[in-house]
Amino acid sequence: MDYSAKIDAAIQKLHDEGRYRTFIDIERRNGHFPHAVWTRPDGTQQDITVWCGNDYLGMGQHPAVLAAMHEAVDATGAGSGGTRNISGTTVYHRRLEAELADLHRKEAALVFTSAYIANEATLSTLPKLFPGLIIVSDELNHASMIEGIKHGRCEKKIFRHNDVAHLREILEGLDLSAPKLIAFESVYSMDGDFGPIREICDLADEFNALTYLDEVHAVGLYGPRGAGVAERDGLADRIDIINGTLGKAYGVMGGYISASARMVDAIRSYAPGFIFTTSIPPAIAAGAAASIRFLKEDQSLRARHQTQAHILKTRLKGIGLPLIDFGSHIVPVPVGNPVKCKMISDRLLQDDGIYVQPINFPTVPRGTERLRFTPSPVHGPDDLDRLVRALDKLWSHCALSRESLSA
Amino acid sequence: MDYSAKIDAAIQKLHDEGRYRTFIDIERRNGHFPHAVWTRPDGTQQDITVWCGNDYLGMGQHPAVLAAMHEAVDATGAGSGGTRNISGTTVYHRRLEAELADLHRKEAALVFTSAYIANEATLSTLPKLFPGLIIVSDELNHASMIEGIKHGRCEKKIFRHNDVAHLREILEGLDLSAPKLIAFESVYSMDGDFGPIREICDLADEFNALTYLDEVHAVGLYGPRGAGVAERDGLADRIDIINGTLGKAYGVMGGYISASARMVDAIRSYAPGFIFTTSIPPAIAAGAAASIRFLKEDQSLRARHQTQAHILKTRLKGIGLPLIDFGSHIVPVPVGNPVKCKMISDRLLQDDGIYVQPINFPTVPRGTERLRFTPSPVHGPDDLDRLVRALDKLWSHCALSRESLSA
Ligand SMILES: Cc1ncc(COP(=O)(O)O)c(C=O)c1O
Ligand SMILES: Cc1ncc(COP(=O)(O)O)c(C=O)c1O
Repeated sequence: MDYSAKIDAAIQKLHDEGRYRTFIDIERRNGHFPHAVWTRPDGTQQDITVWCGNDYLGMGQHPAVLAAMHEAVDATGAGSGGTRNISGTTVYHRRLEAELADLHRKEAALVFTSAYIANEATLSTLPKLFPGLIIVSDELNHASMIEGIKHGRCEKKIFRHNDVAHLREILEGLDLSAPKLIAFESVYSMDGDFGPIREICDLADEFNALTYLDEVHAVGLYGPRGAGVAERDGLADRIDIINGTLGKAYGVMGGYISASARMVDAIRSYAPGFIFTTSIPPAIAAGAAASIRFLKEDQSLRARHQTQAHILKTRLKGIGLPLIDFGSHIVPVPVGNPVKCKMISDRLLQDDGIYVQPINFPTVPRGTERLRFTPSPVHGPDDLDRLVRALDKLWSHCALSRESLSA
Repeated sequence: MDYSAKIDAAIQKLHDEGRYRTFIDIERRNGHFPHAVWTRPDGTQQDITVWCGNDYLGMGQHPAVLAAMHEAVDATGAGSGGTRNISGTTVYHRRLEAELADLHRKEAALVFTSAYIANEATLSTLPKLFPGLIIVSDELNHASMIEGIKHGRCEKKIFRHNDVAHLREILEGLDLSAPKLIAFESVYSMDGDFGPIREICDLADEFNALTYLDEVHAVGLYGPRGAGVAERDGLADRIDIINGTLGKAYGVMGGYISASARMVDAIRSYAPGFIFTTSIPPAIAAGAAASIRFLKEDQSLRARHQTQAHILKTRLKGIGLPLIDFGSHIVPVPVGNPVKCKMISDRLLQDDGIYVQPINFPTVPRGTERLRFTPSPVHGPDDLDRLVRALDKLWSHCALSRESLSA
């Protein structure tokens, strides 16, 4: 058994398929988002503009968030020092969970170290609570949901992406008395399309299924208080478990679920991924709570975010670039080939200081490789101009295909 | 299907078994560790001393750690804004990984959001790299390792805790040419006993198995540079993958593995739990790196930590309390009954402001419920006196059994 040879083969496979990942080393400059400094492997540096971050609103540099973090560090130190059960529950965790329950107008919320582990731990624990549970899952659900469902080892059924008729067909085929859960997302992050929340809730009612909604790419961004698409559409009370992150629009780190008090109590009590790990630092909890609080009141950042996305899409369409557009804040430009996708990304970074990471398999299906732009309220008109000019130049230079401009 | 009834039944089960967990809400006071303020459910507060935290050295209030966190927040903001691959790799992450690789004198290190997910993601990914992998696992391994092994869906064998003869027996029964990995810990956190690292490495050599060592309760605390028990015993180079946390002795949050460059590259490239989640905030990475750096040089905290544990054990033995003592820094007092264990903990907290969480199933096997004390360099002589007096009083008051004082 030659372990090294096996590892080399696994790595070589990635190189062969053009999807070996090289991390870009950046430091954003507080107060100057989305501007950052890129440190090349050789140690030299270049100023860049980040166009692919998920700190969608720039809350990671918001003074209220940073002040809350500084204060918590000064008051109570660096880490929590324990798991939630063993000395790691602080007033900061309690306040954050109260803030989140209020945000979603649910009885309770439970904070995890990330939305990844919130999905993984919750979905893998639900079959323990509901023996015989069948999870019906959208085929494009995020890796963390897929892993959670796999690890729960219950029966699972996959419905075609956003295909409500297919979902119905599957539900009709299931034992009426079996416990069921429908798992889906409100904004699918790689295409930027919306899940059909109302239709799925209707089906859940009809077939007595629980609903599990990942709002990771929507919390902070949609709804009058930033609680997500379900809030915007007046459907939050029809969702049994909402999953969200504190690491994207809220600009910090961590994840959570929000649900009924008894549901949260059960997950809290049975999920290894919640129980057996150090809780998030008080400063992280404090920063996230400040961010949520701010975005409950403020409407302007959310509005400007949508405007920015709209402007970028209009301009990219104007120069004939292909675009996936479902009216959300995410701006994916399909390239369809991992090598080309990386080449464009490399050129943008090196020639123009524009950083947009190529998105390849397994993050998106093979053949749908893309650049995924995330315009934000902190991107200024100059940033936008430079991006559009650079893409226009590159598309001509590399003879990449353009949409028919009349389309 | 009545979902609420199922949830209620699951919760009721915990109440019936006396192991329903109630989180204690505390805030440690920076500069005054281990002192903290306990906020009761009714909102009233009480000063307490924390005796069950895992910030073993009090690094969570170390000025170098807090300064690094403040600086990073000021320089680069709150969160990283992305996954490691998509805009979430910063110079802070790079520096932390370099610090960790140097700590363990290995080629590389990889940071995760926690040691839980580092264990889970790595162990569940290894079978993808080594098809046919058999994982041989100590029966008392941490939940995060158990979950990772389960999720990897490879063949697994469990050897009796620290039983090298049993491990040999199992290895002898396995196909010689199959890839194998032995997973174990250096310090088992609930009993405080040490894994037989040398003997296990010998067996790994003999049977051409990889070694995976969880040093979560040892990093920062053992070895001349705080790299753990394997470093202390001169065995680090015989371990293929070391797992550690940044949330216990280092006082912050996050987890990691350290291994050869190609092993780290493979895990980095294939582990969903690493790939599909927001990276840790730069401030967390900066604080952790500062902590590691400090503990590479400083010997005094480590030494005082051991002395404190020794003193507490001696004093508890002096009043005849039962004790599990394997010569490590962990001081478990067995009670053997979940209800009694919680009762003692409640009395200590309410009457004496001493906080030690009862440790019940599933954290420890049923019938081995215990109080687990974690004395640290920041516990002063007065704290110690008060603890010993309170326990003495309580043991008499509740007619709890004592060891024969001559034992
Ligand atoms: C042995 C062991 N491994 C791993 C972990 C997980 O570490 P972390 O708190 O960083 O998730 C813990 C405790 O939390 C542990 O006790
Ligand atoms: C849909 C979706 N769910 C969950 C997650 C995980 O969130 P977190 O970064 O908080 O782990 C992500 C991305 O990271 C995501 O895109």
